[in-house]
Amino acid sequence: MNEVLRERVEQAMRELRFRPNRIAQTLYHHRSKTIGCILPDIGNPFFSQLFLQLEIGAFERGYTMILGNTVSTRDMELTYLHALTERQVDGLLYLGGLANDPDPDPDALRALHDIAERLPIVAVNGDVPGAPLASSVRADECGGTRALLELLHARGHTRVAFLGGQRDVTTSLEKLDLYRSWHPDHPPAWVQLSGLTIDAGRAAMTALLDSGAPPTACLCVNDLVAAGALAVAHERGLNVPGDLSIVGFDDIFVAQVVTPPLTSVSHNYAEVARQALDALLHAIEGRKPERHITVPALVVERDSVSAPLVHH
Amino acid sequence: MNEVLRERVEQAMRELRFRPNRIAQTLYHHRSKTIGCILPDIGNPFFSQLFLQLEIGAFERGYTMILGNTVSTRDMELTYLHALTERQVDGLLYLGGLANDPDPDPDALRALHDIAERLPIVAVNGDVPGAPLASSVRADECGGTRALLELLHARGHTRVAFLGGQRDVTTSLEKLDLYRSWHPDHPPAWVQLSGLTIDAGRAAMTALLDSGAPPTACLCVNDLVAAGALAVAHERGLNVPGDLSIVGFDDIFVAQVVTPPLTSVSHNYAEVARQALDALLHAIEGRKPERHITVPALVVERDSVSAPLVHH
Repeated sequence: MNEVLRERVEQAMRELRFRPNRIAQTLYHHRSKTIGCILPDIGNPFFSQLFLQLEIGAFERGYTMILGNTVSTRDMELTYLHALTERQVDGLLYLGGLANDPDPDPDALRALHDIAERLPIVAVNGDVPGAPLASSVRADECGGTRALLELLHARGHTRVAFLGGQRDVTTSLEKLDLYRSWHPDHPPAWVQLSGLTIDAGRAAMTALLDSGAPPTACLCVNDLVAAGALAVAHERGLNVPGDLSIVGFDDIFVAQVVTPPLTSVSHNYAEVARQALDALLHAIEGRKPERHITVPALVVERDSVSAPLVHH
Repeated sequence: MNEVLRERVEQAMRELRFRPNRIAQTLYHHRSKTIGCILPDIGNPFFSQLFLQLEIGAFERGYTMILGNTVSTRDMELTYLHALTERQVDGLLYLGGLANDPDPDPDALRALHDIAERLPIVAVNGDVPGAPLASSVRADECGGTRALLELLHARGHTRVAFLGGQRDVTTSLEKLDLYRSWHPDHPPAWVQLSGLTIDAGRAAMTALLDSGAPPTACLCVNDLVAAGALAVAHERGLNVPGDLSIVGFDDIFVAQVVTPPLTSVSHNYAEVARQALDALLHAIEGRKPERHITVPALVVERDSVSAPLVHH
């Protein structure tokens, strides 16, 4: 930086009685050693577990992390995209609403494009097709879903329902496509795209049981949905897994505290975080990371699957 | 601000090709419209639920929130205390490790003191006695604990154990003191200060059941401990609440998804957040909030308590 300009800024700051601070340092060095992270819901253990890995990894690499939690709203998403960028972060880890959205909001997409041209962005746990991102890092959710379907099949389940998910989330649709390829002739009530929350799981299981043709197993789009579904199964007097097997997805800690503990799929959070940070730091340093990075997902078997009861 | 100085900063920035940005605006206006929040573990649903309420409340009031998650380490706590302050936040919501610590780290305490002299700090869910904070806002945990002890007593439980908690956390010690005042003659094995996590709950219940003199009810220091204790009770073939009643604390969402759903105490997160933000914004505007604000805690009754079995 031009010494004369630096002196002018320093002089102005002295007269303004600013103490030397990080904002001033950012002005001098063009580097803040800070990474921004945008995600939709830190209250969801999936995101908090992943964020924790990202934050610790960033700290180990000498970076501090600033979180923008959008509460799944477009307004807060736009606000944080601008706010974090204007705070001169060196790069952005993006887990926001545009990722995995088959029909993204044009304003938010334009904002992301603009930012991606000035700043390295790595999408984590998803992608924004067409956006000029440095990289996208995600667990192999399709591989994990296939492994769960194989596990249920191997235990003898041919009557399997699909609970939870949203039409505007590509990972829900990918899981549903895989389910349909295994179970092409499912009754309509066996697919309940009720959402991604515990309440969505409760609603899905209620509708499924009320439909009168119960399956022997349920593939739930995530562990929260599985936990809600399990609670309703208990309330209706069903034994899990004796009467009904249930599998979750994501392997959040909730999978271990419900009864029975849930068979699930782990994203391998630590490895996803490591790869995402490596990719972002490469990009910050001007190197070019791989555009698409996939981390294998792992089935974690617990006690929520057994062979189906034979009905006579 | 002096127009001449402003012109000098603006001129320097133009020549440095900085786009007008938030950092520059902070230099001009001395206000960033940003609040920092320091907390120990965003992966714990207690903190993520509370943070979410704080963040939404801040957004509604026109502020963005920057999170520093210390992962319960002193190094990250000190780093974030400095990092957030240097980013010119207008105020700080403090839920960090110094709160509720009967023997706080002197370096961290000194750092907090220094910062509190330049910047309004509101402690949330705890206090740092002696530190020049603007305010502290917390739920009435003692009142909530007393209400749980009364509830167990009213159902006929005289043999009650205390599971979880830490000697270096004042809220654990306050709950334990209340427990002891109700159950002065408890066997030593009925107090298990094993920690604050699910695993701590598992360890506490294992030690309790191995001690050979089981109580009829367990007061757990929080819902995570209760969830771990419940899992071990199930594994040992105990019926909850038939054989053993269990109560939690905090009313995180986990209390609703375990079987049976847990009777717990809610902090009234939305109200704690509202009061904390009001206090901080008062302080930022130069008004003086109340130094100590307590929000009533509420017992939430679910299905984990019944009358004790009579043993013959």
